[in-house]
Amino acid sequence: MRGIKIGVIGAGSVIWSSTIVHDLCLTEGLSGSTVSLMDIDEGRLETAMNFARRYSSERKFDINFEKTTDRKEAIRDADLVVNMAMAGGHPYYEKMRRISEIHGYYRGINAVEWNMVSDYHTIWGFKQFKLALEIARDVEQFSPEAWYIQLSNPVLELTTLLGRETKLKIIGICHGHLESEEVANAIGFNEAEMQIESIGLNHTIWMTKFMRDGENEYPVLNDWINSSYENFLKDWRLLSKSNPFMSQMSPAMVDMYGYFGLVPVGDTVRSGTWKYHRDLRTKKQWYGDMGGFDSRQGWNYYLQVERKITQDLKKAVDDVNVPLSNSYPSEISQEPVIPLVDALLNDKRIVHQVNVMNEGAIDGIPGNVAAEFPATVDGHGVHRQEGKSLPQRILNFSITPRIMRMEWAIEAFLEGGKQTLDSWLISDPRTQNNKQAENVIEALLSIPENQEMARHFR
Amino acid sequence: MRGIKIGVIGAGSVIWSSTIVHDLCLTEGLSGSTVSLMDIDEGRLETAMNFARRYSSERKFDINFEKTTDRKEAIRDADLVVNMAMAGGHPYYEKMRRISEIHGYYRGINAVEWNMVSDYHTIWGFKQFKLALEIARDVEQFSPEAWYIQLSNPVLELTTLLGRETKLKIIGICHGHLESEEVANAIGFNEAEMQIESIGLNHTIWMTKFMRDGENEYPVLNDWINSSYENFLKDWRLLSKSNPFMSQMSPAMVDMYGYFGLVPVGDTVRSGTWKYHRDLRTKKQWYGDMGGFDSRQGWNYYLQVERKITQDLKKAVDDVNVPLSNSYPSEISQEPVIPLVDALLNDKRIVHQVNVMNEGAIDGIPGNVAAEFPATVDGHGVHRQEGKSLPQRILNFSITPRIMRMEWAIEAFLEGGKQTLDSWLISDPRTQNNKQAENVIEALLSIPENQEMARHFR
Repeated sequence: MRGIKIGVIGAGSVIWSSTIVHDLCLTEGLSGSTVSLMDIDEGRLETAMNFARRYSSERKFDINFEKTTDRKEAIRDADLVVNMAMAGGHPYYEKMRRISEIHGYYRGINAVEWNMVSDYHTIWGFKQFKLALEIARDVEQFSPEAWYIQLSNPVLELTTLLGRETKLKIIGICHGHLESEEVANAIGFNEAEMQIESIGLNHTIWMTKFMRDGENEYPVLNDWINSSYENFLKDWRLLSKSNPFMSQMSPAMVDMYGYFGLVPVGDTVRSGTWKYHRDLRTKKQWYGDMGGFDSRQGWNYYLQVERKITQDLKKAVDDVNVPLSNSYPSEISQEPVIPLVDALLNDKRIVHQVNVMNEGAIDGIPGNVAAEFPATVDGHGVHRQEGKSLPQRILNFSITPRIMRMEWAIEAFLEGGKQTLDSWLISDPRTQNNKQAENVIEALLSIPENQEMARHFR
Repeated sequence: MRGIKIGVIGAGSVIWSSTIVHDLCLTEGLSGSTVSLMDIDEGRLETAMNFARRYSSERKFDINFEKTTDRKEAIRDADLVVNMAMAGGHPYYEKMRRISEIHGYYRGINAVEWNMVSDYHTIWGFKQFKLALEIARDVEQFSPEAWYIQLSNPVLELTTLLGRETKLKIIGICHGHLESEEVANAIGFNEAEMQIESIGLNHTIWMTKFMRDGENEYPVLNDWINSSYENFLKDWRLLSKSNPFMSQMSPAMVDMYGYFGLVPVGDTVRSGTWKYHRDLRTKKQWYGDMGGFDSRQGWNYYLQVERKITQDLKKAVDDVNVPLSNSYPSEISQEPVIPLVDALLNDKRIVHQVNVMNEGAIDGIPGNVAAEFPATVDGHGVHRQEGKSLPQRILNFSITPRIMRMEWAIEAFLEGGKQTLDSWLISDPRTQNNKQAENVIEALLSIPENQEMARHFR
């Protein structure tokens, strides 16, 4: 019997691939597998491959890694394909952002209400959408029965797009829901004792369950906010001078909770409306002194951290005298990829946070939109439980506007035409006049990297 | 057998009630009816009553008019109730508009994308929503089997609200769809020979059928736009210096048609996005030299015209020497009220443009949202035909944003709380900072007319 084959597209992202390799090597059910690492960047792919070989060998885990720059090779006959590719990479989107900012769109035309997260590339994600669709088409052709896991953003848009346009078995995943644990910890609970559920759309999820021993602990959270949050905030403010990543416990979270009645979880807090993002001063008020993740300063800090981790990983891989496994714990990470892979390929029944076509799972979300919720997963895939619900206010003021923008981005990608971009900008509060919208579109489409995109939209 | 009783709420609007009386007197099936005219303004009600009595007597039409300032009296045992009341009247909303404009919201906080029509009072329509719901509750109590016809705006919001909150048989009506005839006429067709269908939501309807003798005439329209519109526009521009009401054939219509692929009809052209409404200069470009219906100048002109017609009607009523009927044709008007009343009460089968809960009539519009479309109507009510459809682009960029705002307005009315108003303003491009939004809300809630509304929202 042939062993399991897993294709990893975009494996050159060594931060992600090293975690996946670590988790793989702690997952007995996947021993004997072949993992095909694919990237178009040979240097980064080489690092990822060297990491994988050394690490699995140190762990004495029976697994076969291959590397390739040919996507089809990684996909052919795979049982499961993980797409974690980011077309163009950060430099491309940073360039798009700079051009947008010249025209008055701070953080880029892409950063609008409920889509403020800086690497969630929707309306300007032509390259990313196109790549994901091409990968999915290859899977349809070369491993049509394979599971397709969408790991790279925008998970909402891409899971929905591929779910509509292909026949694949698609699951989108994101680790953002784990941040609800910070809420538990802040009020003195051990997250391990809690039953927490967050549902909605990727990056727009709301904590519908916050229980311990079968008891709703939201009242404890309310007491804590009333009695202790002010004090908590003093330390938080101090820390925020050097750490932009503390959105989960930010004043923005508390304000959104006050309005919507449920705690927004993970990137949901960053997404928000213009109330929290109108300008840098506003961002600082709600997300801390660096303006949070999605200010220029906060995002640059994030990119630096990412570069530093990548460099350190590369150094560690090149330094054959120090075992790589020294830097890793003996437990599996919390990242959602490998447990899901294990459940799907080895028919292990687990509960997992997934993004799949809603199909009745959450009331008020259309069936053909990818919703996010925890569900039972096994070798047959995701088993939806119908009838999850969100407050009407969240549907009206958060889910619906988010879905609307998702539909706009998908239509722009599928149909093209300048006016799809124009419509996006017309309702952007930063647009002062129609000419400004036309100018920024023209400027973005004019850079050499966007020749194909320009043909699509002009 | 007792005759038919019709209750008309808001009958003091003599422009509307005179037309209804005229049409009544030409509808044989309604002879012998009792029509109870109700208004809280005794002076206006008196005029309406005098008109009705004199006009029906001149026409020798057997009909009994009553007048009352007591709503319940008009409603009790009615077979059908028409609500054409506008709570607060124009002066109230003009005051709200002035306050909004001081705070930077030209034409009022209510005037946003797809809701630019100046008397379509949604987010600030607390009084209007409340009145409609109270009338509907009275109908539930005093004539629960009666048909309830919503004639006053906002038809989309009120028909949806009452459809959800009451058990009544509700139909909303609007004459806007008739403007498609202007398109036919402009290109040299006789509208009487054409089969035209416009569907969507009230004030957001799109011409899905434009046929003559079973043939699609859209290609003829396209040729005309390409070859003749430029010339047409020269005259149109000249006329627009003194007439703000020519939106149907405006450049805004042609631009929207170009983008959406179907002709927007009636008030849809006025509704549009910020592309057409960003400021007065923009409005002039798209709607003519007065800035169209929904500029300050255009709207004041409209209010003047309305006042003048009302005064002239009052004069005519008071001048007993000149027969009123001299000023009216011998045919029924095109207004949609009385033919619908006749169909419902006398079980006459007609096709009529209605607003009713969608319930599958138009694909992509939720079942519990009032959609507008032509349908067969008879004594059993509206007979929906399922499976009407609109292009995805119209659903994505026009219908969905419009429904979203409708839901916001309904939630604001039902749930209250300042933050529902705040959310509306946060995504308004005119909002430069959060304080501006808070200030305008506070200013609007602070006027004496809004004491009850303030209690609801504070």
